[in-house]
Amino acid sequence: MDNLTLMRKLSIPAETKIVMLVIDGLGGLPQELGGPTELEAAHTPNLDALAARSICGLSVPVAAGITPGSGPAHLALFGYDPLRYEVGRGVLEACGIGFDLGKDDVAARGNFCTVDGEGRITDRRAGRIPTEKGTELCKLLRTIKLEGVEIFVEPVREYRFVLVLRGEGLSAEIADTDPQQLGVPPLPVKALTPEAEGTAALVERWVEQAKALLADQHPANMLVLRGFSKDPCLPKMGEIYKLKTAAIATYPMYRGLARLVGMDVLQTGESLEEELETLEAHWADYDFFYFHVKKTDSAGEDGDFEGKVSIIEHVDELVPSFLELGPDVLIVTGDHSTPAALKSHSWHPLPTLLYSRYCRPDAVKRFSEGECAQGALGRFPATDLMPLAMANALRLTKFGA
Amino acid sequence: MDNLTLMRKLSIPAETKIVMLVIDGLGGLPQELGGPTELEAAHTPNLDALAARSICGLSVPVAAGITPGSGPAHLALFGYDPLRYEVGRGVLEACGIGFDLGKDDVAARGNFCTVDGEGRITDRRAGRIPTEKGTELCKLLRTIKLEGVEIFVEPVREYRFVLVLRGEGLSAEIADTDPQQLGVPPLPVKALTPEAEGTAALVERWVEQAKALLADQHPANMLVLRGFSKDPCLPKMGEIYKLKTAAIATYPMYRGLARLVGMDVLQTGESLEEELETLEAHWADYDFFYFHVKKTDSAGEDGDFEGKVSIIEHVDELVPSFLELGPDVLIVTGDHSTPAALKSHSWHPLPTLLYSRYCRPDAVKRFSEGECAQGALGRFPATDLMPLAMANALRLTKFGA
Repeated sequence: MDNLTLMRKLSIPAETKIVMLVIDGLGGLPQELGGPTELEAAHTPNLDALAARSICGLSVPVAAGITPGSGPAHLALFGYDPLRYEVGRGVLEACGIGFDLGKDDVAARGNFCTVDGEGRITDRRAGRIPTEKGTELCKLLRTIKLEGVEIFVEPVREYRFVLVLRGEGLSAEIADTDPQQLGVPPLPVKALTPEAEGTAALVERWVEQAKALLADQHPANMLVLRGFSKDPCLPKMGEIYKLKTAAIATYPMYRGLARLVGMDVLQTGESLEEELETLEAHWADYDFFYFHVKKTDSAGEDGDFEGKVSIIEHVDELVPSFLELGPDVLIVTGDHSTPAALKSHSWHPLPTLLYSRYCRPDAVKRFSEGECAQGALGRFPATDLMPLAMANALRLTKFGA
Repeated sequence: MDNLTLMRKLSIPAETKIVMLVIDGLGGLPQELGGPTELEAAHTPNLDALAARSICGLSVPVAAGITPGSGPAHLALFGYDPLRYEVGRGVLEACGIGFDLGKDDVAARGNFCTVDGEGRITDRRAGRIPTEKGTELCKLLRTIKLEGVEIFVEPVREYRFVLVLRGEGLSAEIADTDPQQLGVPPLPVKALTPEAEGTAALVERWVEQAKALLADQHPANMLVLRGFSKDPCLPKMGEIYKLKTAAIATYPMYRGLARLVGMDVLQTGESLEEELETLEAHWADYDFFYFHVKKTDSAGEDGDFEGKVSIIEHVDELVPSFLELGPDVLIVTGDHSTPAALKSHSWHPLPTLLYSRYCRPDAVKRFSEGECAQGALGRFPATDLMPLAMANALRLTKFGA
């Protein structure tokens, strides 16, 4: 019996409230041997005091050694086995911009990029063109029509867009055209299964026409596509956990992911303070809040150790406001590690604390990778977090007689 | 999705090198309450210093409480779920001597033994007869011919040999004739399934004739067979991990096992120094080295606590030479525990360290059972080691978007 089946069977209604504060890319690495990680370097008196009243551990998003993308990492936090439930990047992006994806639509994530005279990619993000420019280019691409299929080209942000194909018998089994490296041309559109040949041929024609339309643009004179996918029709959190769930996140992909698992995605602003105001404003309306902090991950990706430290310190300053709301369960964790030392997501497990009146606090006094490794939760699968949250919220009945 | 599928999907080529130093039977037990284990009694300044820069834990070869044979224990280290991939002892021994096992051959491990006048076993190893004597006895047994089947009797070392049957429709579902105890006769040849009746009848006739041929030999006047098995056709490490893999091991069974998972088995000498020279000589040629130390296990099996301590200390002296080669990832572990106190393999998890630039070192300062129990890897399945090694070698791409 998997986690979700067990939760569906045992969950009961209650009045308690759960907050899951996800600090994206939270886990880190020392810059030099013996040095502190980003979290250890940060001055976090509030998180430390909370850790002292919590049960702590290191959560493993997918499996030992596996570096997760944001999709699987978040699914695990919400209790979905990420090896069982796969969500493609295209679907995530489409949901993230509130695109109403049909059951049979095929979505892909697109990047406008820059290619040289030989067609080799020189900038995978086309100099991070402004959103206005990206929107204008999407409008240009909308002029491409292909027979038998409806095409949507939707801007996401800066150089990013979503391509959606709507029609009969489309397949998402199409390889990425994004080679994810510089100095080589975009990959040709390729079907991964014989059934996908027809869809691949459509996409190929679309890319050819797009290439011609973009040729004299600068710097966004080409595009790459990845993560062709369809709506995976995930079971919804509300049914599984009998919770009214809400997401507070600024970045489209996380909003999209929350929508896929059935959360209400709340309107909010760009700053942490605005996100917090949203939480406060909707406190009475929901049982479960997913609260997402994006900028730690961005700083990690940029290799900006100090930047990541100061965002963690900013989050720490808000912790008392979270506590003032009186959540029955407050979890602080990350979806995956993004050490500045690696400038990318990594496989390292996540420092995690779970605070509730019934958590049985351990000896951890400081919220850090090192101390959480000594916590009573040990090294645990991230999919355990929701069952633990539900238990601590007294929202699960007994298993068996 | 199992570990190997995930590795096959996520592994990418790189220039990094991984060394897995397997100290056979490494884990131990105190001789008396409160005393040190073999590893704790050993003076290991180099391993301790390495542990301080590493992430540590206790690895569980198969499952809690399960004492593994060398086959499953090693498969787990190489990332193969030992409950899913079973390799029989006969196959292991055959591969260990470089026997070219056919797809349908049935192999069994044989021991020459000593029986008394009543046919009861008095020495399961026939006084450890020299290899020359064992070879001579194998030649004698090769005179036995059975219709419809080709028979190979190959000496391994001392009292050990391999019996291989080659023919149509043979089954390996035959029970051991080795009772693994003294004072009782060898067990009769018994089919474990109806389909194996024919093969069992052949083996029975072979054993009868062998018994007659050996009757006036001394001390090796009988034999026992175990581990009837066929080539399990394991997926190969090179394909799974995109690594060029090499094994440095002196003992036939470990060489055989390495061959089964697709490693190149390097010529080497009997001493640790010679094994190390082999590693140094082939450093440029491979990405992954499995380096096996046998004598710790032998000392444990003999109940020789001090002997095991001194072999561990010998390994410790070689650690700087491993580091001088500059491996990107260095793992030090065992395949299973062999406490001198038990004179046998045991179920106890294995002190393990993983050193790499990106390992996120924990608080462990001493390579010991006690300190590794506090390590950030916690108590983890041995099958996690290869994914962790691959991640730390930056040889895995991200899972999902």
